Amino acid sequence: MTGDDWGALVERLGFASIDHLRPLTQGHQEVIFAPGKTAEQLVTIAERLAARSGSFLATRIEAGHWEALQARFPLAEHNALGRTVYLPPEPEPPPTGRGTILIVTAGTGDLPVAEEAAVTARALRNTVERLTDVGVAGIHRILTQTEKLRDATVIIVVAGMEGALPSVVGGMVKCPVIAVPTSVGYGASFGGLAALLGMLNSCAAGVTVVNIDNGFGAAAAASRINHT
Amino acid sequence: MTGDDWGALVERLGFASIDHLRPLTQGHQEVIFAPGKTAEQLVTIAERLAARSGSFLATRIEAGHWEALQARFPLAEHNALGRTVYLPPEPEPPPTGRGTILIVTAGTGDLPVAEEAAVTARALRNTVERLTDVGVAGIHRILTQTEKLRDATVIIVVAGMEGALPSVVGGMVKCPVIAVPTSVGYGASFGGLAALLGMLNSCAAGVTVVNIDNGFGAAAAASRINHT
Amino acid sequence: MTGDDWGALVERLGFASIDHLRPLTQGHQEVIFAPGKTAEQLVTIAERLAARSGSFLATRIEAGHWEALQARFPLAEHNALGRTVYLPPEPEPPPTGRGTILIVTAGTGDLPVAEEAAVTARALRNTVERLTDVGVAGIHRILTQTEKLRDATVIIVVAGMEGALPSVVGGMVKCPVIAVPTSVGYGASFGGLAALLGMLNSCAAGVTVVNIDNGFGAAAAASRINHT
Amino acid sequence: MTGDDWGALVERLGFASIDHLRPLTQGHQEVIFAPGKTAEQLVTIAERLAARSGSFLATRIEAGHWEALQARFPLAEHNALGRTVYLPPEPEPPPTGRGTILIVTAGTGDLPVAEEAAVTARALRNTVERLTDVGVAGIHRILTQTEKLRDATVIIVVAGMEGALPSVVGGMVKCPVIAVPTSVGYGASFGGLAALLGMLNSCAAGVTVVNIDNGFGAAAAASRINHT
Amino acid sequence: MTGDDWGALVERLGFASIDHLRPLTQGHQEVIFAPGKTAEQLVTIAERLAARSGSFLATRIEAGHWEALQARFPLAEHNALGRTVYLPPEPEPPPTGRGTILIVTAGTGDLPVAEEAAVTARALRNTVERLTDVGVAGIHRILTQTEKLRDATVIIVVAGMEGALPSVVGGMVKCPVIAVPTSVGYGASFGGLAALLGMLNSCAAGVTVVNIDNGFGAAAAASRINHT
Amino acid sequence: MTGDDWGALVERLGFASIDHLRPLTQGHQEVIFAPGKTAEQLVTIAERLAARSGSFLATRIEAGHWEALQARFPLAEHNALGRTVYLPPEPEPPPTGRGTILIVTAGTGDLPVAEEAAVTARALRNTVERLTDVGVAGIHRILTQTEKLRDATVIIVVAGMEGALPSVVGGMVKCPVIAVPTSVGYGASFGGLAALLGMLNSCAAGVTVVNIDNGFGAAAAASRINHT
Amino acid sequence: MTGDDWGALVERLGFASIDHLRPLTQGHQEVIFAPGKTAEQLVTIAERLAARSGSFLATRIEAGHWEALQARFPLAEHNALGRTVYLPPEPEPPPTGRGTILIVTAGTGDLPVAEEAAVTARALRNTVERLTDVGVAGIHRILTQTEKLRDATVIIVVAGMEGALPSVVGGMVKCPVIAVPTSVGYGASFGGLAALLGMLNSCAAGVTVVNIDNGFGAAAAASRINHT
Amino acid sequence: MTGDDWGALVERLGFASIDHLRPLTQGHQEVIFAPGKTAEQLVTIAERLAARSGSFLATRIEAGHWEALQARFPLAEHNALGRTVYLPPEPEPPPTGRGTILIVTAGTGDLPVAEEAAVTARALRNTVERLTDVGVAGIHRILTQTEKLRDATVIIVVAGMEGALPSVVGGMVKCPVIAVPTSVGYGASFGGLAALLGMLNSCAAGVTVVNIDNGFGAAAAASRINHT
Repeated sequence: MTGDDWGALVERLGFASIDHLRPLTQGHQEVIFAPGKTAEQLVTIAERLAARSGSFLATRIEAGHWEALQARFPLAEHNALGRTVYLPPEPEPPPTGRGTILIVTAGTGDLPVAEEAAVTARALRNTVERLTDVGVAGIHRILTQTEKLRDATVIIVVAGMEGALPSVVGGMVKCPVIAVPTSVGYGASFGGLAALLGMLNSCAAGVTVVNIDNGFGAAAAASRINHT
Repeated sequence: MTGDDWGALVERLGFASIDHLRPLTQGHQEVIFAPGKTAEQLVTIAERLAARSGSFLATRIEAGHWEALQARFPLAEHNALGRTVYLPPEPEPPPTGRGTILIVTAGTGDLPVAEEAAVTARALRNTVERLTDVGVAGIHRILTQTEKLRDATVIIVVAGMEGALPSVVGGMVKCPVIAVPTSVGYGASFGGLAALLGMLNSCAAGVTVVNIDNGFGAAAAASRINHT
Repeated sequence: MTGDDWGALVERLGFASIDHLRPLTQGHQEVIFAPGKTAEQLVTIAERLAARSGSFLATRIEAGHWEALQARFPLAEHNALGRTVYLPPEPEPPPTGRGTILIVTAGTGDLPVAEEAAVTARALRNTVERLTDVGVAGIHRILTQTEKLRDATVIIVVAGMEGALPSVVGGMVKCPVIAVPTSVGYGASFGGLAALLGMLNSCAAGVTVVNIDNGFGAAAAASRINHT
Repeated sequence: MTGDDWGALVERLGFASIDHLRPLTQGHQEVIFAPGKTAEQLVTIAERLAARSGSFLATRIEAGHWEALQARFPLAEHNALGRTVYLPPEPEPPPTGRGTILIVTAGTGDLPVAEEAAVTARALRNTVERLTDVGVAGIHRILTQTEKLRDATVIIVVAGMEGALPSVVGGMVKCPVIAVPTSVGYGASFGGLAALLGMLNSCAAGVTVVNIDNGFGAAAAASRINHT
Repeated sequence: MTGDDWGALVERLGFASIDHLRPLTQGHQEVIFAPGKTAEQLVTIAERLAARSGSFLATRIEAGHWEALQARFPLAEHNALGRTVYLPPEPEPPPTGRGTILIVTAGTGDLPVAEEAAVTARALRNTVERLTDVGVAGIHRILTQTEKLRDATVIIVVAGMEGALPSVVGGMVKCPVIAVPTSVGYGASFGGLAALLGMLNSCAAGVTVVNIDNGFGAAAAASRINHT
Repeated sequence: MTGDDWGALVERLGFASIDHLRPLTQGHQEVIFAPGKTAEQLVTIAERLAARSGSFLATRIEAGHWEALQARFPLAEHNALGRTVYLPPEPEPPPTGRGTILIVTAGTGDLPVAEEAAVTARALRNTVERLTDVGVAGIHRILTQTEKLRDATVIIVVAGMEGALPSVVGGMVKCPVIAVPTSVGYGASFGGLAALLGMLNSCAAGVTVVNIDNGFGAAAAASRINHT
Repeated sequence: MTGDDWGALVERLGFASIDHLRPLTQGHQEVIFAPGKTAEQLVTIAERLAARSGSFLATRIEAGHWEALQARFPLAEHNALGRTVYLPPEPEPPPTGRGTILIVTAGTGDLPVAEEAAVTARALRNTVERLTDVGVAGIHRILTQTEKLRDATVIIVVAGMEGALPSVVGGMVKCPVIAVPTSVGYGASFGGLAALLGMLNSCAAGVTVVNIDNGFGAAAAASRINHT
Repeated sequence: MTGDDWGALVERLGFASIDHLRPLTQGHQEVIFAPGKTAEQLVTIAERLAARSGSFLATRIEAGHWEALQARFPLAEHNALGRTVYLPPEPEPPPTGRGTILIVTAGTGDLPVAEEAAVTARALRNTVERLTDVGVAGIHRILTQTEKLRDATVIIVVAGMEGALPSVVGGMVKCPVIAVPTSVGYGASFGGLAALLGMLNSCAAGVTVVNIDNGFGAAAAASRINHT
């Protein structure tokens, strides 16, 4: 492919560009990162994506975004906890990933990030399972779930505070574990830094880490693993 | 399996314990982290592991370690750059991983970490390829390697300084990318912090990160992906 | 020039001083940094500057600033995205800089800082070009713009998140590159720190850096280069 | 007690003062912190303490310290791993603490700090038990030790890297848990900062924390608890 | 107890789980951490806890929480300063702790954290005393309280700014001292970091530390000490 | 130019690659960054570069480097203070830069970084001037040098400790100012961080910054400016 | 003085204590730090102080504070910029300090902190002079003020951004210089950290530093110097 | 004085400049900061200073410095603990400062910094007193010294670890207090950062702070106060 071909695949809207080359290079179309965009801009981008693929996903939506998207796309689905809007293709095709992405959370406060990951993983055509509120301070909660953990193809572990759960999970399974630190906590959690450092220093082999609160990124990585 | 069974699988040496349960839970035996161990301790642990499996891997070896291991295990192999000693099984079995782990480095200074990853990936029974010195300041160097990048099942990208290479690679392929920040740099690299933060904030989806200089961890994660 | 002469060139308004020596020492009059100033103070300072030169530039304007300036200076121009108000001389003189300042942005969120730079560069009498949304995760976007990059006399690269774009651009051109980290990002971007450290550690020679979100400073430095 | 009385209880040696008021206020005599002291100074202070109580404890001893103390106090005991020298009273009196202080370590590298704590706890007249190499990446290792954990009056948990073990232990017992982060780790462990932050953010109630590598301080606090 | 037994003791509400195993492992039922919960969720969780034990404690309550809890539990008590709601058992049983928990504050701004600790300590069935506004800049204020300090079984010291008070108190008593840094301060207090570091580096033996503003955690640890 | 052409211009030595495309894209050949290289490797790379251009420059040389290079290149020049080895072309061609690069230092400790910059600027074919020991604590020292400052085309200001000198110089001239923070200082200089932050926050417009101790980078940027 | 005497001098209001010992130990009565206090509490404390001395000073007042104090103390004076309320004694006594405290500011944004210092210094009975907007980027502004600088007994220098002004002033005078970093700036100023570090690393001897934005503390220290 | 006059007062040695203007502007000649200087350079600078004034002071001397200075200046005095060499004028003139500078240390490890301060203060012609080993963990040690504290004109307080002593001293006296944080400590002292932050956040009014381990700077500031 030449530079000219490349250029033709980038749709320039003035306030943003849409990279239609991405399905070729990355395996899926762009996901809309909503912060800072007006409702009108969001709708316009969603229209362009939907025109090509019949689908779009917007993450981190802000006040007024859902109402505007709902008016234009009555079939779009809003995940309030995860702050996503997803328009599934009609009909929604079956998952293409090989196995199951399991999303594990340490506490209630980690659910928004986990839901962002879950919706993203679905939009990228994966089967998703959830396991919630199994933090390490009551270690029996995760130990009774060994079977569910071992059935997964890849596991996303979402945790704030000390971020210890990925180390425990990483030691219980053979599959890849993606750790997502969250900003849940206060004081010396420093906005998720404590959990981030904990996960980077995990004594369990096979754990990799994404940015704080980055449910989308964890799901994108998990989907790549599940599609390889 | 009961707690008693578990206990029976932990071999206690006084100065360390060997967890023989790991092949069951994690898919491979323990890897020896050499720092702080005496040559004698290292040899003893290596003997116990070799007695069970005919093989061992030691990482981050220090002065005197190689000589002691070589004397006891004449068939062991020393990777001086990667600071590893590996005793392959005799005969060495074929790889069990599904595809190829490609290890990409930005600069010459990143090679030790890349070699640690390469030896680890081989010991965990993966096919390994290397692509060196393709940092982003001469962007043509990576662009001419598109085919090699696309043939990989999982890519490990090792980079210091600003740590930008994983973002470029992540945007060129569909497979999972594991980023390893290195402590290569000076001044405001703060021992690899700049590269670590850069990789965590990568604008490319599908990139996950391990600790600074953690070639072993990147290979362990890549091997999990390659064996799933 | 004596200390008394110096004193005569400083106009004291009580709430601020205007340094009319600056056109002599720095080549251009003071630019108004608006934060914390009342609309009345802003108008007063603008009046004094306009009285001398027929022109003024205010950056980082806040709520109410534009309305007050517009009422007093009907010919002033408001760049809402860049948060600037500029009164061009009447008629606007041609640029005095030798060549073109090219302002490159990685993503949509970097546009406000880029616009602040663009308006500043124009007010300092430079020819300005823009190149937007060419972040490294889709590396083909910047590669197809080689000619535009090579036509510039100096390039300002504005990027948040991992801040990798200046390294790529710096490796593609011979001219000076000024990198502006932005606070675009979340979590471990730590308000632009990740991008700042990335740029300071750039593996490309010839890249220099300004403060986070400092579009004004980048343009002032670029204008000095363009006028030397 | 008056200020004069106070003054009489401070023995001034020129290079240091010995606070003989401490047994009254704190329940035990001063412990010698050896770093930076010459062997001669160390012996002198030890002589003054031994003259009053028949005993002394020195922590963090450096090269040459042990040889000098051994020559002067043939009955003194050297814990090479814990870097302590202890002269027990003759005969050594029975423990005065109510129960048992259990010292738990996550990995082999944490043993020096644990030994410093163990010797200190003994010198402060406590019964001490140890439980080693039970880090969370092989969670079965700690789970099989429930009984030992529940028999303790107070537990000291020593861990580096991500510092997750105190959270797990804190959730398994009713007694106080003192967490000691260690500088074991590399890269983003930042000299024990990761473990420290993890422990401060522990999701388990009842966990308190001391300084990095501060085995002495943990034992002093545990002894206070055991003597209350 | 088996994994199935464990499972039966976790009550799953959809938005949260209640761990009824905790009274067995930890000695008391869960305390509700209110932030981020809706008033309805808070009331539901409080109902489940009250149904089992006739009591509940919620900390860090937010706007609307008190009104909802008051309507449902007319006998609940609101501590506005400490941001807690506590429903005592009817009749309230006598304390079970062996002695007195003394809560000491350095300044007026530290009172909210101290009150959170006081209510928690009472709910965990301890006798509580308070000593307020005795910061080190007027050292006579703490010195005149020696007797009160020496009567305590365990002391919680709450301080912001430089966090020096625990060192002084730790040197005056034999009992355990738990230090709570607060976010009181500005500038280089960095949200309580200065006080936290000060307390971790205390030159007084026997001082342990909890997270910034963590009055609940300090009381939980003190109660464990008081019940051992 | 095609990808194949690009490939042909990269000379692969096994332990390193030499990018002969750089004179085309960047205007000069690669400069050798010596740390971590053996004397033999250094000589080999120098030979390849000298074979093409009759010249080479190595920075940050370490023990043994100079002796090895001197033996092979008798005409090479060693700058012991700046830790560089430079082989000038024979005969050395006249400078190609338009004007003069002035290198200003605040204190004696900043000289090594300044010399690295001076040699680099010469190798990149610029006229270089120096102005030393003119730190702001004796402000008269810089004020008496106004003429020299105003004669420069671009100024490099090298300073450690509080890094204030670039702000003063930036306010005295119209030309571009490149600030180089150095690691000179102790305590709260944090290895040059204080100077770096000071320079990034300079209140003088037109100042840009490079990494701590990066004399090479400052000269490369200055040379680009001087050649534009 | 005995402990009982001490106790009698502390007036306990329930929500706060007033330490009437301070005029004896420190030379002046307490100053009210207003943040977090209700208007009623503020008035009550002011009444107690005014009852003893006929005067009070409150710093960092918040919304509603001034109105409440004005209603109760019609003669109180409000400094809106400095956020202080001061009730001078009637009649106001002459200064007791030996000389003049000169308060120097770098930029307009530093004025609030300077005004807090000025009002505090007056309340502590010092003669106060001001010198404003003399930042180092226009170095002639401070150089023309040499005489005013040399007439002062002690100088307070208030500066944000890079905080370079105290170094220049410290080099021009023989008297003590107290540096106050302010939070004026953005990006890598990190809330005043850049200025703070700059001032701590000042290359001028005789400069000491207080907390970020701490105008009160600088004035208290300057007053001590002026009264010694 | 003109710029030419200024120039005549700067003696340029090639490797350093000596600013003979300083006695006029600052009240005393330059003090030699020895690190990084060769013994020969040190002797040369000392000779130039001694030639003018009959005296010199060198701080932070390194290996070989003392021997070289002693050979050249037999009357010079070496303070090994404080790492200074001082040649007093012959005969040594009486102090010119108004009162006494009292230097207070918290612990034995703080003595080197205190001695650097003591020698500097003497060289700047002040009367110096010392008070050692009075840290806050044994608060009676400082309380019995009230009279000595109150006799001082200015107090320098040197402390590491949590740095709490200046707050206590600041609350006991009316005179200025200069706090010097030291790098004494380990773990979360982060090289003196904990003490530095503690001192900056002191709740005692009238405390100012210098850089970590900066005994020279504290004495220079104290001498200015004592000479005003």
